[in-house]
Amino acid sequence: MRFLHTSDWHLGRRLHGFDLQAEQADAFSQIEQIALAQQVDGVIVAGDLYDRSLPAEQSVRMLNQQFKQLNLVDHLPLYVIAGNHDSATRLATGASWYQQTHLYVATQLAQAFTPVELTDTQIFLLPYFEPFAARQYFHDEQLQTLQQAIVPVFQKMKQVFDPAKKHVLVAHFFVAGSSQTTSETPLTVGGLAAIPSDLLADFDYVALGHLHGKDALQLPNARYSGSPIKFSLSETTQQKGVWIVDTEPFWLQFYPLKLLHDVIHLTQSFQTLTDESYYQKQDLNNYFGITLTDRQIIPNLLSRLRTIYPKLLTVERQTKLQLPDSAKSDVRQLQQQDPMDLLTDFYEQVAQVPLTKQQQQWATQALQLAQKEVQ
Amino acid sequence: MRFLHTSDWHLGRRLHGFDLQAEQADAFSQIEQIALAQQVDGVIVAGDLYDRSLPAEQSVRMLNQQFKQLNLVDHLPLYVIAGNHDSATRLATGASWYQQTHLYVATQLAQAFTPVELTDTQIFLLPYFEPFAARQYFHDEQLQTLQQAIVPVFQKMKQVFDPAKKHVLVAHFFVAGSSQTTSETPLTVGGLAAIPSDLLADFDYVALGHLHGKDALQLPNARYSGSPIKFSLSETTQQKGVWIVDTEPFWLQFYPLKLLHDVIHLTQSFQTLTDESYYQKQDLNNYFGITLTDRQIIPNLLSRLRTIYPKLLTVERQTKLQLPDSAKSDVRQLQQQDPMDLLTDFYEQVAQVPLTKQQQQWATQALQLAQKEVQ
Repeated sequence: MRFLHTSDWHLGRRLHGFDLQAEQADAFSQIEQIALAQQVDGVIVAGDLYDRSLPAEQSVRMLNQQFKQLNLVDHLPLYVIAGNHDSATRLATGASWYQQTHLYVATQLAQAFTPVELTDTQIFLLPYFEPFAARQYFHDEQLQTLQQAIVPVFQKMKQVFDPAKKHVLVAHFFVAGSSQTTSETPLTVGGLAAIPSDLLADFDYVALGHLHGKDALQLPNARYSGSPIKFSLSETTQQKGVWIVDTEPFWLQFYPLKLLHDVIHLTQSFQTLTDESYYQKQDLNNYFGITLTDRQIIPNLLSRLRTIYPKLLTVERQTKLQLPDSAKSDVRQLQQQDPMDLLTDFYEQVAQVPLTKQQQQWATQALQLAQKEVQ
Repeated sequence: MRFLHTSDWHLGRRLHGFDLQAEQADAFSQIEQIALAQQVDGVIVAGDLYDRSLPAEQSVRMLNQQFKQLNLVDHLPLYVIAGNHDSATRLATGASWYQQTHLYVATQLAQAFTPVELTDTQIFLLPYFEPFAARQYFHDEQLQTLQQAIVPVFQKMKQVFDPAKKHVLVAHFFVAGSSQTTSETPLTVGGLAAIPSDLLADFDYVALGHLHGKDALQLPNARYSGSPIKFSLSETTQQKGVWIVDTEPFWLQFYPLKLLHDVIHLTQSFQTLTDESYYQKQDLNNYFGITLTDRQIIPNLLSRLRTIYPKLLTVERQTKLQLPDSAKSDVRQLQQQDPMDLLTDFYEQVAQVPLTKQQQQWATQALQLAQKEVQ
């Protein structure tokens, strides 16, 4: 069996307020073309189809269209699981009818134990689930963590393993040893929600969702596909795409997607950023996160940058306030200091240059005025 | 063709804060039994399946189950349109797959012009639509009201009328001359959203949704089914149920539903309401709206009534404040009156009895205290 592995579509997601519909539609279209060109037997979507359990109408419309295109127009079987961002109940709408054309949507733990068979392969669709669902299903109050809960889940799957077939698992969880970025919602705090990677050894391939970078995990038989587009500044260096996987003989290859609009991180001075010879080399349709190397105050900073970079996401200063150890000393001591001394110290720590004479004059005047009003 | 006609399920609706899931599940089960017993060829649901465009998960789960039960378990064809309470986009989820088992869900105006054929009948599924949708569809900016918009809609339907067949319309609108209650959301203010009933004459039957009482319209060939349960105190006297309609030879018959819990309006004195010999004759599992005939203040009124009537919806006084004409005179005149006189007048108008001596004493003391604080 040959299949395409994608995940984490997050329909409805916004990037610092910017709508990503055009980017998502473009990526979907590329995924469809790759599936057709590679003549896959099916497409796996490993969870987080929506960004929110309560998706907006435009996201619902988009997913309805995408399912229709792949399954009813292209006649491709689809293997879909709910992720932690999806509402299992809402995603299940229509599922009983979808099966008739080999569109499988698994949203409940119980569905994981009836594999879907395709050519030489058994596909186990394990939706995102919480330990309480396993406690209920297995009637076992001991299953307090995902690490504990996954053991009987895999045991039960293996009971229906057909030794004559390959075994593919579709799942949405965090595998121990994976590298996480800031743009995935943490499943839980701490390590007990991480699945030990050696537990995955019995599957020929594990098509994972949840982490947004394809390089988060490097096991020979288990991969994250990553998201089709970049969802945050923590993903700027990730290459986006899908896996094509064949089970016999086993091979897998990553097919990159061309980003309609990239997400770029620039570390530069204001002068360079606003220099025509610099910014004309950039594709200004991209999204930009900027780290400014300047220290001085720049009037109308954001609006001046936005006229050049209309899809400006964030502007940060490279030099951040770093409190010296002495600053952690007794606050009462600070309260006894002269306000002008405090201000001078503070300015020097933040700006790393002393106050100019003019600035000192302004500050003195302002402090005198303030004290008059208190009296 | 013989079919069952229901509408206005309003899944997710609450009755003065009370959840109606149990009542709705019970009514659905009766509708299913009637459809099976009457050996209908199909079931029509004429809009407002959900109460809100953004239904809660429990409502989504319920509708998914009900569609599955009727269509996949009972193998009944279903003819469904979106009402003004439904989100067309959300209700369309799965619709392309549903058709394979003769579950038809029409949510867009364009779908109204391709009738579904069943035995001897063409069924036209006209979802709720606003005039702007007709302006777009017909490229006609003149279609400003629903009355104007419906004319080309019906014309276009008639172009595909098969003269050898019967013609059934499923629609969700207000027909001129119908009697409306307070529990339906008005489609618009004014009469231009009402469809003249003579325009319906060309259909063998019009299965209507929107109004909640089956008696709202009495045309020989057009009926509201009404909602399956009572959704407000304005529906207390309505008989709830479904129509069974046969097209050849034409007949229709109303099949009442037994309400799991009724909605009852009582007009009584507090003494009677709390008299065991009176309330033991009531089924206290029902919902009650109470109009109190008493005039005097009754301490802890609501909590005392709720101990007897746990599903108490509202308590109103029969005697309402009726301002005499003199009250409309100059406000400045009132401002010059003595506060005690004003209070006495006001009490008499509301309570229709004068202040007792004790009450006068209390009022005088309170006014004196108040004046002290002002000084």
